[in-house]
Order: sequence, then structure tokens, then C-alpha cells
Amino acid sequence: MNFPSTLIENAVEEFAKLPSVGKKTAMRLVLHLLKEEENKTRALAEALVKMRIKTVYCKTCYNISDAPTCNICTNTRRDQTIICVVEDIRDVMAIENTGQYQGLYHVLGGVIAPIVGIGPSQLNIDPLIARTVDSAVKEVILALSPTMDGDTTAYYITKQLKDSNVVVSTIARGIPIGGELEYADEITLGRSIVARTTDQV
Amino acid sequence: MNFPSTLIENAVEEFAKLPSVGKKTAMRLVLHLLKEEENKTRALAEALVKMRIKTVYCKTCYNISDAPTCNICTNTRRDQTIICVVEDIRDVMAIENTGQYQGLYHVLGGVIAPIVGIGPSQLNIDPLIARTVDSAVKEVILALSPTMDGDTTAYYITKQLKDSNVVVSTIARGIPIGGELEYADEITLGRSIVARTTDQV
Repeated sequence: MNFPSTLIENAVEEFAKLPSVGKKTAMRLVLHLLKEEENKTRALAEALVKMRIKTVYCKTCYNISDAPTCNICTNTRRDQTIICVVEDIRDVMAIENTGQYQGLYHVLGGVIAPIVGIGPSQLNIDPLIARTVDSAVKEVILALSPTMDGDTTAYYITKQLKDSNVVVSTIARGIPIGGELEYADEITLGRSIVARTTDQV
Repeated sequence: MNFPSTLIENAVEEFAKLPSVGKKTAMRLVLHLLKEEENKTRALAEALVKMRIKTVYCKTCYNISDAPTCNICTNTRRDQTIICVVEDIRDVMAIENTGQYQGLYHVLGGVIAPIVGIGPSQLNIDPLIARTVDSAVKEVILALSPTMDGDTTAYYITKQLKDSNVVVSTIARGIPIGGELEYADEITLGRSIVARTTDQV
């Protein structure tokens, strides 16, 4: 691209480093900022830098937090006996949005993915095991994506917790509510028959 | 959404103000920045603020520039007798990338769009007319999008330039090179027959 200004070029290049933002999208974002007032750009820049510098990972559950221990871990009204294990903080937000879960979380920061070189030691698995040892924890819910890597991670954690006294459970897999049977893939449909439940009315 | 941190929430909201960035995309961008080193976020923020504060519009052609007059206007090797009128700076970049044009530009900053309340006075049309009056300009090329608003704008400018001595031309419209005839819309195909050219070999 032929940029009319090196400052624009720099801004476009920085935007284009973000995931799924190409140079054309980046250019559109830059033109948008140019049309808006100056303080809009300053607000964006400040919010990003503050977010990056001041947020920390909760030292207990590795959720993102403004304080050393996150809101969820410090909330004594939550069930301290259950830990829900998730891949990243988006999953925490998704589960929190359901309003169906009142226990604690543990954010792994990824899943085991040998192909891209992510092993158990790069994830927050050891701290999870440590949390289950000397505490009130009775159950660990594995809420990982039902992918190859997610299943590998779940298997690894289950093996690590085999000798402990905690119950390891997995979130239910089956036909999504509102989903049509005929469009479900065979594996999901097959498993949903094998793992059928008796009436919960 | 339930955000684990107000700083994250602010950053997501600022990102989501950008065009075509929703909250989910914004969250993904924020998580990406959190995973990367701190200086990456600082670099992005700095590039944006610098771009917004330091770039100016060229006082002649309203192209974006680091200096009061842009590189194209100050380049004496360019043909000073032709002005190509475009909607925004992306069009300048697109035409520059073709390497086929050696004249000057004039950036309108939009097109006449009565529905969204954009009239000729909000665009850089008067300065364009002024440029054609007391200068060497012999031709004005209208390179606006072939949309209703683009055509309205082209018509308005043509009318304004009627009494001047400049030739007003429009970029060729027709079947795109590499395009298949059968997929061309009827209006384009019809016009391309009416506006056929004799061999230019």
C-alpha cells in the first residue's frame, strides 16, 4: 500500500498486528479515528494501556482481575467446594452469564496442544492440583471445549487428580437446546443416546 | 457481559466503538493484548494517538499528510493540469497503487448523501472549484463510486464546473477486467455496450 503519511502507516501496521485485523480493516479503523474527535482516540489508547498495565491474574484462580485476588475468589457467598476448570477468561464470563454456577473457577490459560508446543507445564495445571489438596474442594468440573486438545487436557487433569479425594466431572455434552436432531453430527447424536438421562422433571 | 475487571470492560467498550468491532471481537482483541508483552499495547496506543494528533489534511487537496501540504501536491514532477476527484483517502491510495495516474488529487471527504444529511457544504467541493479557477488545471477527473450518492455528487460538481474552462471526465465504467460477462449486472453490461470503445491497440 502507498500511505500518504508515515504516521498513518504506523497506526495501520499496529492495528494489523491484532488477530483477524488485516491491513484494509486496519485502514478503515484508522480513517474512523481520524474522522472522530481527538479525545476518542486518546480514550481508546488510555483504556488499552491501563488495561494492559493494571490488570493482573488472580493468584488463586488465574482469572483476570483488578486486585491480586479476583471478585469471585473473594466472594464468600460462593460455593468454595466446587472448582470449574476452563480454558480462558472468556469461558468464565460465558458461564457467569448463565447464572447457573455459584462455585469457584480455575483458568488454565490454554489447553494442552502438542502440535503448537503447549505442554502441561505452560498451563496453570499444577496450581489447580495444589488447590485440591489442602482445601475444602470436593468437586472439580471440567468445562473444556470438546475438541482433541480439550479432551487431552481433560484426560491429563483427570489422571493427575486420580489419587485425590475430589470428584472429577465434565459438563454435559449432547444436542444443544434448540438444535435440530437431523443437523446434529453423528458423534454428538450417538453420545447423546449413550449418555441419555432419566427424567429430571 | 459479566466482566472480571472494570479495566477490561473499559478497554472492550473502547474497542467496540470502532466500526464493525462488536463486543465479542473486542474481548478477543483485549485478550490478545493481555497475552502479548506490555510494550506491544503501548506501541499500539502511541501509534494511534500520534497518528490522530499529528496528521493534518493537506491544505490544497485535503489528502491526509504529515505536513501542511502533502507529498503529492509538493511533487513538481506530477502533472499539475489534472485533478482527480475522489471520496476519501483510501481512493487516493487505491489509485496511487495502480501506478497509472501522475496528476493531482482532490479529496471530497465524502459524497452528497441527503438521507444522512450530508450536503455539498460539508464536503470539500468549494475548494475544488476554487482550485480550478486561477490555476493551470485543464481537466477534472471524477473518480467517485458509481452509486446513487456518488452520481449525485458527480452531477453537482459537473454543474458547478459548467462555466469554467476545465474538461470534466469520469473514470470508465464497464465490465471489470477478469470479470465474466454472464455474471455482470444488466445495467453495467448495457452501459458497457453503449459506451463501447474502438480498438485501442
